[in-house]
Amino acid sequence: MTYNLVVCYNTVVIYNRVVKDDDMPHLLHIDSSIQGERSVSRSLTARAAAAWLAAHPDGTVSYRDLGANPLPHLNSESGLARMVPPDQHTPAQAASWELSKEVVEEVLAADTILLGLPVYNFGAPSSVKSWVDHLVAPGLSVDHATMTGLLGGRDLLVLASRGGGYAPGTPREGWDHAEPWLPHALSLTALEPRFITAELTLANVNPQMAELKPLAAESLAAAERAIDAQWAPLAV
Amino acid sequence: MTYNLVVCYNTVVIYNRVVKDDDMPHLLHIDSSIQGERSVSRSLTARAAAAWLAAHPDGTVSYRDLGANPLPHLNSESGLARMVPPDQHTPAQAASWELSKEVVEEVLAADTILLGLPVYNFGAPSSVKSWVDHLVAPGLSVDHATMTGLLGGRDLLVLASRGGGYAPGTPREGWDHAEPWLPHALSLTALEPRFITAELTLANVNPQMAELKPLAAESLAAAERAIDAQWAPLAV
Repeated sequence: MTYNLVVCYNTVVIYNRVVKDDDMPHLLHIDSSIQGERSVSRSLTARAAAAWLAAHPDGTVSYRDLGANPLPHLNSESGLARMVPPDQHTPAQAASWELSKEVVEEVLAADTILLGLPVYNFGAPSSVKSWVDHLVAPGLSVDHATMTGLLGGRDLLVLASRGGGYAPGTPREGWDHAEPWLPHALSLTALEPRFITAELTLANVNPQMAELKPLAAESLAAAERAIDAQWAPLAV
Repeated sequence: MTYNLVVCYNTVVIYNRVVKDDDMPHLLHIDSSIQGERSVSRSLTARAAAAWLAAHPDGTVSYRDLGANPLPHLNSESGLARMVPPDQHTPAQAASWELSKEVVEEVLAADTILLGLPVYNFGAPSSVKSWVDHLVAPGLSVDHATMTGLLGGRDLLVLASRGGGYAPGTPREGWDHAEPWLPHALSLTALEPRFITAELTLANVNPQMAELKPLAAESLAAAERAIDAQWAPLAV
């Protein structure tokens, strides 16, 4: 049993103890943007969560906001918790291991996971890196003996946003280091992220990118269409 | 004037108020590994710092340990400090901005910067990401009007370590997302990192990589030779 945050999409947020019913579809919704209401990735995860709920009217949702409440960095005192056998943990490592358990259990309880992934300074938010560092834990998310991932069979849909355009042929091709990194980072767990990405999101706030506004709008609209097509609604 | 940590390489560490003398060469030594004495990147930065000191006997050193004391993640409350004009900062943003100032001033005071950069889950430590997120600050490290980097003209030598081998032609070619990311992440500041890298460092602790031990030893020895060749000693 875990405590989860049940999100109502009209800004009312209710903490609730969720007992996972294995027959009931469960969504884990994770945001990481620090931009609040201006965030494109948050708007995309909210849209995806609403679409998922429309298609799964009996589904339950839990929520984690890495932007508001990042997990601690791995550090010298606690960071080796995932490499030292639990019975040898120091108190700091034991606390860090408990956080790993919480993060892994949240994922295990979900059939579908939505992750909002903006790009800051050409990489994933440090809070997403830290979430991954807690999630990749032999004995919890990876079988210790065989090193087989234990989180497979779930749909991880990443709603990514990036301020510039880094597609093949553009001047900054290859400068998005978030999207190529994540599948490698999660590979040990057997989670295989899919991506829906809106790019050039800075065109709307950076005057020097004003001429890219139409392309940005097109990219956002394509991302929204892709989200809306994810789950065939079971009920209207 | 900034408070710096003066490191003596015989394990004695003294906090000291360092007044930057512009005629005196100054080294900023940064570690980020969480592995303590087992860390390869820490052994490499220590070797480089010793070599630098041998070549600059009048030089001064400051030290930052991101592994022991990571900077906070950017978060919803404080993270926009670097995008909002300082006179509009909330208290949380003002505190975050002060940290950015501290980090930028440390770099500005240095002629040479050593950064230890291990790879965790195929990316830079989240603490290094967070350091970069604090360092890239228009108005401090980037000219606000021209967006020209203000940290150029310094030597940033990155002592990198990675557990596997990700070179061209290997099965995991392209799986190191730390080294390709850093130059892009720092580009706005005009810092241009150089890299000396030891790879396959897990060969010494992972039995399944035992046959790679000779290659790992070769890589480490090459990194150490490269470090020793960095600064022609001025005094013996």
